Amino acid sequence: MGHGTNRVEDMSSPNNGTAATATAGGETIVEIHSVCLPPKKTAFQKLKKRVADVFFPDDPLQRFRNQTWRNRVILGLQSLFPIFTWGSHYDLKLFRSDVVSGLTIASLAIPQGISYAKLANLPPIVGLYSSFVPPLIYAVLGSSKHLAVGPVSIASLVMGSMLSESVSPTQDPILYLQLAFTSTFFAGLFQASLGLLRLGFLIDFLSKATLVGFTAGAAVIVSLQQLKGLLGIVHFTGKMQFIPVMSSVFNHRSEWSWETIVMGMCFLSILLTTRHISMRKPKLFWISAAAPLASVIISTLLVYLIRSKTQAISYIGHLPKGLNPPSSNMLYFSGAHLALAIKTGIITGILSLTEGIAVGRTFASLKNYQVNGNKEMMAIGFMNMAGSCTSCYVTTGSFSRSAVNYNAGAKTAVSNIVMASAVLVTLLFLMPLFYYTPNVILAVIILTAVIGLIDYQAAYKLWKVDKFDFFTCMCSFFGVLFVSVPLGLAIAVGVSVIKILLHVTRPNTSEFGNIPGTQIYQSLGRYREASRIPGFLVLAVESPIYFANSTYLQERILKWTREEETRIKENNGTTLKCIILDMTAVSAIDTSGLEAVFELRRRLEKQSLQLVLVNPVGTVMEKLHKSKIIDALGLSGLYLTVGEAVADLSSTWKANGQP
Amino acid sequence: MGHGTNRVEDMSSPNNGTAATATAGGETIVEIHSVCLPPKKTAFQKLKKRVADVFFPDDPLQRFRNQTWRNRVILGLQSLFPIFTWGSHYDLKLFRSDVVSGLTIASLAIPQGISYAKLANLPPIVGLYSSFVPPLIYAVLGSSKHLAVGPVSIASLVMGSMLSESVSPTQDPILYLQLAFTSTFFAGLFQASLGLLRLGFLIDFLSKATLVGFTAGAAVIVSLQQLKGLLGIVHFTGKMQFIPVMSSVFNHRSEWSWETIVMGMCFLSILLTTRHISMRKPKLFWISAAAPLASVIISTLLVYLIRSKTQAISYIGHLPKGLNPPSSNMLYFSGAHLALAIKTGIITGILSLTEGIAVGRTFASLKNYQVNGNKEMMAIGFMNMAGSCTSCYVTTGSFSRSAVNYNAGAKTAVSNIVMASAVLVTLLFLMPLFYYTPNVILAVIILTAVIGLIDYQAAYKLWKVDKFDFFTCMCSFFGVLFVSVPLGLAIAVGVSVIKILLHVTRPNTSEFGNIPGTQIYQSLGRYREASRIPGFLVLAVESPIYFANSTYLQERILKWTREEETRIKENNGTTLKCIILDMTAVSAIDTSGLEAVFELRRRLEKQSLQLVLVNPVGTVMEKLHKSKIIDALGLSGLYLTVGEAVADLSSTWKANGQP
Repeated sequence: MGHGTNRVEDMSSPNNGTAATATAGGETIVEIHSVCLPPKKTAFQKLKKRVADVFFPDDPLQRFRNQTWRNRVILGLQSLFPIFTWGSHYDLKLFRSDVVSGLTIASLAIPQGISYAKLANLPPIVGLYSSFVPPLIYAVLGSSKHLAVGPVSIASLVMGSMLSESVSPTQDPILYLQLAFTSTFFAGLFQASLGLLRLGFLIDFLSKATLVGFTAGAAVIVSLQQLKGLLGIVHFTGKMQFIPVMSSVFNHRSEWSWETIVMGMCFLSILLTTRHISMRKPKLFWISAAAPLASVIISTLLVYLIRSKTQAISYIGHLPKGLNPPSSNMLYFSGAHLALAIKTGIITGILSLTEGIAVGRTFASLKNYQVNGNKEMMAIGFMNMAGSCTSCYVTTGSFSRSAVNYNAGAKTAVSNIVMASAVLVTLLFLMPLFYYTPNVILAVIILTAVIGLIDYQAAYKLWKVDKFDFFTCMCSFFGVLFVSVPLGLAIAVGVSVIKILLHVTRPNTSEFGNIPGTQIYQSLGRYREASRIPGFLVLAVESPIYFANSTYLQERILKWTREEETRIKENNGTTLKCIILDMTAVSAIDTSGLEAVFELRRRLEKQSLQLVLVNPVGTVMEKLHKSKIIDALGLSGLYLTVGEAVADLSSTWKANGQP
Repeated sequence: MGHGTNRVEDMSSPNNGTAATATAGGETIVEIHSVCLPPKKTAFQKLKKRVADVFFPDDPLQRFRNQTWRNRVILGLQSLFPIFTWGSHYDLKLFRSDVVSGLTIASLAIPQGISYAKLANLPPIVGLYSSFVPPLIYAVLGSSKHLAVGPVSIASLVMGSMLSESVSPTQDPILYLQLAFTSTFFAGLFQASLGLLRLGFLIDFLSKATLVGFTAGAAVIVSLQQLKGLLGIVHFTGKMQFIPVMSSVFNHRSEWSWETIVMGMCFLSILLTTRHISMRKPKLFWISAAAPLASVIISTLLVYLIRSKTQAISYIGHLPKGLNPPSSNMLYFSGAHLALAIKTGIITGILSLTEGIAVGRTFASLKNYQVNGNKEMMAIGFMNMAGSCTSCYVTTGSFSRSAVNYNAGAKTAVSNIVMASAVLVTLLFLMPLFYYTPNVILAVIILTAVIGLIDYQAAYKLWKVDKFDFFTCMCSFFGVLFVSVPLGLAIAVGVSVIKILLHVTRPNTSEFGNIPGTQIYQSLGRYREASRIPGFLVLAVESPIYFANSTYLQERILKWTREEETRIKENNGTTLKCIILDMTAVSAIDTSGLEAVFELRRRLEKQSLQLVLVNPVGTVMEKLHKSKIIDALGLSGLYLTVGEAVADLSSTWKANGQP
């Protein structure tokens, strides 16, 4: 800015990119740069760029340019099936790592699969089915190396709560199962469509703050549901909210079984201790990874041994042997509950997608590779669609199992194949062994898994850094806990969007002053050394100027002007002559905004005040030009920097003999 | 920026507002300013400021400060009843102007009142009632000097269309009237509450573009409805949309009456001609102002004279004499249609409020006085609430009559009182004279009034300046025309909000370069003379960083980095060492955004690239500080200007012997 070259430059026309020069006899000598229009583009070119920005920010076709046809086919196959990318240089060393990690997550996936299926009010075997087919499909389509695929707690809970509000899983089990598979199908369809239509950015609207609150709320609900198994209650409420669950717990005090409670508490403390150890020392991850299966085995043995002495501890009972039966004939595309299935599908779909992608991104960033959001969506989507035809319900990448997978040294998606093979062996041969597995142990496994989802530290950080984000978080937490799962989520997303709108509706404006000895202009409220320039009022607008704020900004700037004039009168200062509007942070303007600028100029002119715009960004400049506001502002109405505006206007006033 | 003082300054800690100095042995010598935190504020102070910004941007209590109690009472009265402000210095000269303008608008208000009431499917006399009480109340409460109050076409149409969808005005006239008064009450309640709760900014969400489209669409619908009167059709559809109306017109071709059509066409051409004359020469405003009343008188005489010869031209018939009867007993606060009344009230309320405030602001800005939005809302709201108890339906400031009022030289709200008095005389004595007034003339008056509302020039300007605004405009136009009035409006508001969200979701980023010989950094795409600095990549983000764009921005910046590295490799340039992020236009950041910045820094570090932030605004700086990102960035991670960052980092590299 104003680097002391000995010239005064005229404002050249906005179409002209280079600075025109002219010599003037003024005392203050300064170089003036003209403000350029961006290069001309047709409306179609702009639309094309905009569409590319919105839908193809990753430029997926870039890799195909300048390639032979053969290479293009290979690249195409690789981008459709990432297995072709890493499959060609897969070796025994990688395989050894994958076997270890695959078996580790299998030991976790089998008890969790059975437990989560119960959370969704589905037969336990469906949880194992869902840990077999989807991981195989993900291994071929998915781009993450560490994602461990299978049923997860949040999606299971949401599906269970939404479906059982309309259909009872005990009275109408076939219809319930049909709806579960249909929801899974729609979840997959929705996920795959988001990926295909490249609408992945929609899941960004679930902000971190919303998710922290939502997950914690869901975890509390899941934990409350476990009171049934933990206390051995037989007649439990079908509702999910805090109040009916608690009243159900205390109204059925007579059903509490002390044997169940003692067993539950013992295993709960063991599992929590192993979890604590593994969290302290990540190298001991296998302790917490092996604990659930070990607990299942020990507790099953226990129940088997005392089976003749007490009947107080309920157990799973008979589970069918054999592989996933086909279920495409159970999909339900008409009738009264179709809307419910679609709604449940969309909500569980979006939640499981968010979890899967977040988990994938987390571990990809730890190992510094890229996970492609849209491709992951398609992979998860196809996996669920295929799952819905093979007796699986909604699956995605689980955070807890992926962490174990990562720590166990998984190198590629082969660990998912190993896990699926272990589940296959279980399904074919080991099912009778689960006959005496007590339900309480499943409750304990779920409790241990979801307790870790209550991230109170993240909530505390939100409170410290951004009170509004904390408010969003609380909205989703209490919304989920006291209203309902989908409504709580909707409230939180609504609050987040209102926050954006509020920021746009009432943007910040601040008065700038010059930092002495420099050409830097900064906020007077923030930089004590900054000082006002007599005769000027420099204002910065920190937001796009839209219909939603154009009236407010106009009034606010006039108020700044009035306040400044009062201040000047009180201090007998130099009369105010010019308002400089620093537009650097005005990232967009619409027709209402243009009108507001025009009107502002007109009203300031009536008070004999000049309006000067400084450094509008490309798109804003273009619109100012098209709407003829640039012409209305005149030659000395547009500058590149505040410093140049002040220098040029001051010298003009001096040349005209004004004070 | 870097003004050539012979010092190198260290980054001082962000808490320290003054620039610390230190001497270094480097070759490039530059002055470095530290980035300040804004003055510390507690969360409560920030909340207070935020609330004040949102709800009290006009600082209504400012005038009361430093005043005696007596003055405060006077100021309080004046602000509640603006009549006390101008009433004390009202004189005969002002009164003379007001009488002339008041009588002029009365001559327009009487025929329009009757016509608009028919548009709302209400008895014609209700239109006159509504031109009597509300203007009197507005004269006491309103702050605009030129607003002419009474029924308006859009609100009448919307009320008519929404109510008659559920209740037939011909089969159930009493219930229909009850609902109309109840809607008016809720409209007033809603308007007054918006004013009292200072939520006036909500009406800003109806952007100019939305309103242009909506008004034009409504005008077309109103015009189509007039085909009934213009063609003399008896059995006309009760629907409002384009298709049913047109099919109704052509299905009842046998009912067309040539006498009515001839009369209608004659008067239509007369009225359009006078309107054209007055638009060309604003001084001849009285020609178009007097024309409707003159047409009514002439056509009534005509029908009276030929009444024995033909019955083809339908006329109004008997109208009751006398003042507004009380109607508070007709308000309807329970029962099946309450929700409809509330919905209709809110939508007509918001539309009439938008029109009233826009009209008030337009003429206030022409005469350079202030109209207070929240106060106007309360005035219009109370006027409608009082109206609903005195047989009036929704009223507001009419654009056409206010323009006539302004041109006729109105000086204060007394012109409304004069108009009300003229209506009073009409109601008391002149009602029988309207017996033979033909319905076709009312249709012609409405047509002439609404044709002017189709602002195709504004639509063309939207197209030229902002394609997206034009799209919004078309959405509301076609939505109103083919779907329904409230839904069309909702679609347009939804599209406007999506535009804001889209802008936030996919913000613009651009690469900056240095303009040689200066410390100015500007967009490389826009300023041809700008050039890259070897070793640096300067990026500017033009949007707040929110959950909705944090992932995108992170990916986009990494993509910029990859592209830059490819470019450097191709040209054998200097290795990229530092990414400078110009944060000037980042007007806000939330926790997701902070996390994205942190993650970006981590990922760039893995590629041995340094991340530097430049000039974050106050609130962003505060959050960067609170979340410890500033500490993570280190001493040379934050600068006030791009120039200082480049200079300081280059000199550090040189001092360390790097290329």
